[in-house]
Amino acid sequence: MRIAIIGLGLIGGSIGLALKQNPPAGGKLKIIGIPRREETIGLAKQLGAIDEGTTDHVKGVADADLVFICTPIHLIVPVIQQIAPSLKKGMIVTDVGSSKQEIVKQAERAVPRGVLYIGGHPMAGKETSKLEAADPALFQGKTWLLTRTARSSITALEKVGQLAGLMGARVVEMDPRTHDLVVAAISHLPLALAVALVNTVAADPQHQLMGQSASSGFRDTTRVASGDPILGVDLFQTNQKPVLKMIRSFKQALNELEALIKEGNGEKLKAALEKAKQFRDPLYQ
Amino acid sequence: MRIAIIGLGLIGGSIGLALKQNPPAGGKLKIIGIPRREETIGLAKQLGAIDEGTTDHVKGVADADLVFICTPIHLIVPVIQQIAPSLKKGMIVTDVGSSKQEIVKQAERAVPRGVLYIGGHPMAGKETSKLEAADPALFQGKTWLLTRTARSSITALEKVGQLAGLMGARVVEMDPRTHDLVVAAISHLPLALAVALVNTVAADPQHQLMGQSASSGFRDTTRVASGDPILGVDLFQTNQKPVLKMIRSFKQALNELEALIKEGNGEKLKAALEKAKQFRDPLYQ
Repeated sequence: MRIAIIGLGLIGGSIGLALKQNPPAGGKLKIIGIPRREETIGLAKQLGAIDEGTTDHVKGVADADLVFICTPIHLIVPVIQQIAPSLKKGMIVTDVGSSKQEIVKQAERAVPRGVLYIGGHPMAGKETSKLEAADPALFQGKTWLLTRTARSSITALEKVGQLAGLMGARVVEMDPRTHDLVVAAISHLPLALAVALVNTVAADPQHQLMGQSASSGFRDTTRVASGDPILGVDLFQTNQKPVLKMIRSFKQALNELEALIKEGNGEKLKAALEKAKQFRDPLYQ
Repeated sequence: MRIAIIGLGLIGGSIGLALKQNPPAGGKLKIIGIPRREETIGLAKQLGAIDEGTTDHVKGVADADLVFICTPIHLIVPVIQQIAPSLKKGMIVTDVGSSKQEIVKQAERAVPRGVLYIGGHPMAGKETSKLEAADPALFQGKTWLLTRTARSSITALEKVGQLAGLMGARVVEMDPRTHDLVVAAISHLPLALAVALVNTVAADPQHQLMGQSASSGFRDTTRVASGDPILGVDLFQTNQKPVLKMIRSFKQALNELEALIKEGNGEKLKAALEKAKQFRDPLYQ
């Protein structure tokens, strides 16, 4: 099997390492890395993430059975449009972008008839998005979301799902619209809250004592605010409407909790806290 | 040195274990545990958290050099009032309650002249508050807040600070009013946000897929929502005003971020995310 990976950052590099460690059955695996810059090829080879490399997209995807597009999110569709003429019947194209509705719509239009596109989104990351941090265990135990539409090939869905499984991920399928709402709720809204929380503290006259006193609760609640700001901007821009919808829902939930705190209603407060605990506990057991 | 610990849960038990492991210099350390229920004495002895035990507060604190009050927060002042007649000149009384303005005011009134009260608050916890989870390393690397007022004895502040230091904690001093605002910002507000975030997801029609897809970002952002609901209610009730103040500040910060997302203003969004990252990164290095 020949797998091309366009974009060799944390995700692209980790896919290479993970598949090298647990290659798909049947035939030798060859991974072709296609980074933006020439010098990345050497590093990716040295890390063992790829077998061959080229910066020429068209050359790199020739004869590939499957192409992973792991570029920054706003480049995914342009890259697919660029490689489209070189894609052959039966090839599978998938991406790892964290919003899907727009990407899937445009990608399905861009690929030639007979080329099988599946939208993907591994729910894994680190505080850096650099190749140097690539890790074969990055997807271990994580969720890999795949989108299914009327145009999705079941064979392609299964194939991408199998690779995600080999990398240790748990596959969950949904339609692109639901995907975007789901990640807005569990990923982009938490980021917005973490950023707003840190900025609330940073803007307070007592910010210095607050920073000195901050403990593990604050650390965990705000961890995602230490991620790459550019990735965050990408998420908020490419998934704008679902994020705004979830922020509105959140503000309502916070207003309700605020009202209970104002009332000092112990019973109702306890019920609100118990409801949260009961929903959350089973997710991480 | 004789140290009495009233309330043998996670915190009281961990104080016993930590001081046993790193006892204060000069004279043999004896720890007297004073739990609510008789059967807790045996368990605390078995764990090695105490040397002796009694459920009789008055008897337990007799001849103690220092008393830690580790009961649930709403019992702290009643316990101090109850033991007040048995306290002798030069004794130090401290507590571990997570809000301080009311407690310190009433505790300073309740202790007899010559008894030295210092408000305390170790910023450490687990998802359970049971004695079984007591851990000598609970305070290691954590912050132990102490309150200083016009009536605080410097000697007593130093003594309590020394014990906190022996347990591995970093002491930060502040006045009770500042304390309550600080913990509202870095501990109680994060709890309110985590609870409101989980309840937002739980109330969404897609809550099932959201739960299935939830990853490490959601896990960390909401971790504190899995804490004991009764403790949470206590925090919101005993620190009501500072919590409400911080919720108001937070809502303003969230509204500003929401406006930037709505605008799609990449530059300003990036600045907001960078500001948060720059404040947070140095706190956890």
